Amino acid sequence: MHDHPARLIAKKRDGGELSAVEIADLVSGVVDGSLGDAQLGAFLMAVCCNGMTEAETTALTLAMRDSGRVLRHEHVPRKKIDKHSTGGVGDKVSLVLAPLVAAAGVAVPMVSGRGLGHTGGTIDKLASLPGYRTDLTIERFQHVLDQCGYAMMAPSVELAPADRRMYATRDVSGTVESIPLITSSILSKKLAEGIDGLVMDVKCGRAAFMKEENDAVALMEGLVATGRSAGIRMAALLTDMDHPLGLALGNSLEVAEVLAALEGQCPDDLRAVTLALGVEMLLLAGAAPDAETAMATLERLWRDGVVRQVFRHNLELQGGDLRVMDDPAVLGCAPVVVPVEAARPGFVADVDPLALGHVVVDLGGGRRQPSDPIDPHVGIVLKKTLGDAVQSGDVLAFVHARTATAAHDAAPRVLAAMPVGDERRRRRSIVLRRMA
Amino acid sequence: MHDHPARLIAKKRDGGELSAVEIADLVSGVVDGSLGDAQLGAFLMAVCCNGMTEAETTALTLAMRDSGRVLRHEHVPRKKIDKHSTGGVGDKVSLVLAPLVAAAGVAVPMVSGRGLGHTGGTIDKLASLPGYRTDLTIERFQHVLDQCGYAMMAPSVELAPADRRMYATRDVSGTVESIPLITSSILSKKLAEGIDGLVMDVKCGRAAFMKEENDAVALMEGLVATGRSAGIRMAALLTDMDHPLGLALGNSLEVAEVLAALEGQCPDDLRAVTLALGVEMLLLAGAAPDAETAMATLERLWRDGVVRQVFRHNLELQGGDLRVMDDPAVLGCAPVVVPVEAARPGFVADVDPLALGHVVVDLGGGRRQPSDPIDPHVGIVLKKTLGDAVQSGDVLAFVHARTATAAHDAAPRVLAAMPVGDERRRRRSIVLRRMA
Repeated sequence: MHDHPARLIAKKRDGGELSAVEIADLVSGVVDGSLGDAQLGAFLMAVCCNGMTEAETTALTLAMRDSGRVLRHEHVPRKKIDKHSTGGVGDKVSLVLAPLVAAAGVAVPMVSGRGLGHTGGTIDKLASLPGYRTDLTIERFQHVLDQCGYAMMAPSVELAPADRRMYATRDVSGTVESIPLITSSILSKKLAEGIDGLVMDVKCGRAAFMKEENDAVALMEGLVATGRSAGIRMAALLTDMDHPLGLALGNSLEVAEVLAALEGQCPDDLRAVTLALGVEMLLLAGAAPDAETAMATLERLWRDGVVRQVFRHNLELQGGDLRVMDDPAVLGCAPVVVPVEAARPGFVADVDPLALGHVVVDLGGGRRQPSDPIDPHVGIVLKKTLGDAVQSGDVLAFVHARTATAAHDAAPRVLAAMPVGDERRRRRSIVLRRMA
Repeated sequence: MHDHPARLIAKKRDGGELSAVEIADLVSGVVDGSLGDAQLGAFLMAVCCNGMTEAETTALTLAMRDSGRVLRHEHVPRKKIDKHSTGGVGDKVSLVLAPLVAAAGVAVPMVSGRGLGHTGGTIDKLASLPGYRTDLTIERFQHVLDQCGYAMMAPSVELAPADRRMYATRDVSGTVESIPLITSSILSKKLAEGIDGLVMDVKCGRAAFMKEENDAVALMEGLVATGRSAGIRMAALLTDMDHPLGLALGNSLEVAEVLAALEGQCPDDLRAVTLALGVEMLLLAGAAPDAETAMATLERLWRDGVVRQVFRHNLELQGGDLRVMDDPAVLGCAPVVVPVEAARPGFVADVDPLALGHVVVDLGGGRRQPSDPIDPHVGIVLKKTLGDAVQSGDVLAFVHARTATAAHDAAPRVLAAMPVGDERRRRRSIVLRRMA
């Protein structure tokens, strides 16, 4: 810190605009520890209350990016494009999307997060693949990227270390809900990956971080504007999280769904979101002249099994057990599986993603605290979804549990989360809005 | 903490009103350490940005008061009334006021602070009295109060410990400037003294915490309203701090001015503020039927030497060297004393209290950091004040310094702080406003 931090904090408290130098000074204090916890908490709250200008958010993002190593993949001639989702229930998109886009000639250097609360994390899903390593060195990460077109890595202490402390501080101090802070947290890590462009999947709905569409749109706009100011190409989709994505919820269950999807058996909503995001990534990379061509390319690569081959190559490079490609039983399974049956005929009137997400956490498939262990095999597989007609006794879902007691506790909660009514409801459009 | 602190902090962030139970929960976390520094910093900033209702400020004040011991002086039959000043330059009022009001039959249990920055502290002034102890046990404090009608003590770790951590946190985190936080900090400590009433001396002007009158009035109103809600009688005076109070600045120099004042040689402004505050204290105590009677009583007690006798009694009880009453040289003195002389004839056009306060700090008579040592003997004694006619070469002030170098550095700064001009300016009224 060159300046007294209290002065800078008070400037933001009073609604002033901090200069890029002042913001860099604060961020250097975050990393070297000269900015104390109380000061960091106060600064974050001042940002929550008074916001940041676009210039400030960009300066914060760049200072956080530059707090650690910034990758440059000079040995990879392809355009580097990543996707980031604000998180939801059943969101296994990255596992299909990365090989899909890589198959189309775009490099995808993907650093993903772990799950917390009802929101799943890509790294946890990958961890349920026997042998698969996500704790790569940066050199190994770059090698995998070079070899198969995409690489998946857990957050490295070398990338954007300022975000690590700021994120942990926000979590305990009631300063999570701030568009400049969310934006800089997401983008600083993504920019450190050395990407040319980023597609944001901003989720909106009951199980999303942003419940209301106007909040989600504001976040989307902030992310796109700041990413562009920071020098990368940006696109964003607003997608529905009022219902789970796909039918499997829980880590290895979701991987099994991905393996089936690679074979062509993919729930419609998962396919739609994956393709829509893939189109944006190809367009950002300049790998397709227009959206129709991009879509046709991706559909062909998926249908012809090319995506599955790229996935297999990545699996091999990152240490995964290749037998899983032909035998999903290699993933293992939970010891107790119980059906949840409809108590009356009618139509599935709701599939509440937040309630189901909490059930998965309580089964042991998610974390309440960042240090909680994860049971990779537990979860829920939906057999019916919104609007499906059911008879009494039809199986609505299967609960996969560690114990009979856990299954017994979960089943009525799943039933309550999937009420059956007389009216046939339809899901709203899965892609709600596009910004590019 | 019974509730998750982040939820309570976020409630204040979003402009919600915290209940008394929620506030007590946060304050208990301040004391037992379950509220982390980042959480405390964020909470304090949320209060800075969003304010607090009167009910919240009162709840915060009471929770902070109840974080430690709350004194009850049941053995003292007199009404217990204290005075608190928001701080200024040359403010030695407490040293005269406490014996004055005690002489009139009111008990004054006064816990005072140390100085920081340009603002002096009563405890530092008292520390320049050879032998005088302010590190009393609470039992000794109560004994002194009982014996001579007033007692002076440094902040005890037993009283309002929540404020200690909150004050230190505010100081580093840019969260000082908040009326609810200032109010609860002042009143929690004062309420823990076990008083029936409090008179606030809210300073206003260049060397005051509140520079602008409307800010000072807002603080005054907040203090009076919250004190009353918390169950004590309150009065407040808004007094001028655009110029120093009295003529001596620096710890033992101010004590010498007090000793002279007790003998009847008192600068007009110091006398006026002391009497005005004394009148309010007598009225709060019910010790006088009206302001005129109160004033007449105080003037008589001062003139007749009763106040000096009470001061002497307190000095004896708190361990001070009684010889100082007849020989101020017992206080000791700085080795270098140099005059500052007017360079032209005219009238003293300004006496800048902030500039002079900073000179005293730089001479070693004040603190930049709370841990700095204090030189009791250094400072400035004004020989002229605002509006006084001067000739070239007239002494404007004497600088009392530890070294010739320090005196040499200080003298031109004192001269610059006391410009001589052609127009005769007058000081504004010393008591600007009254609230009772």
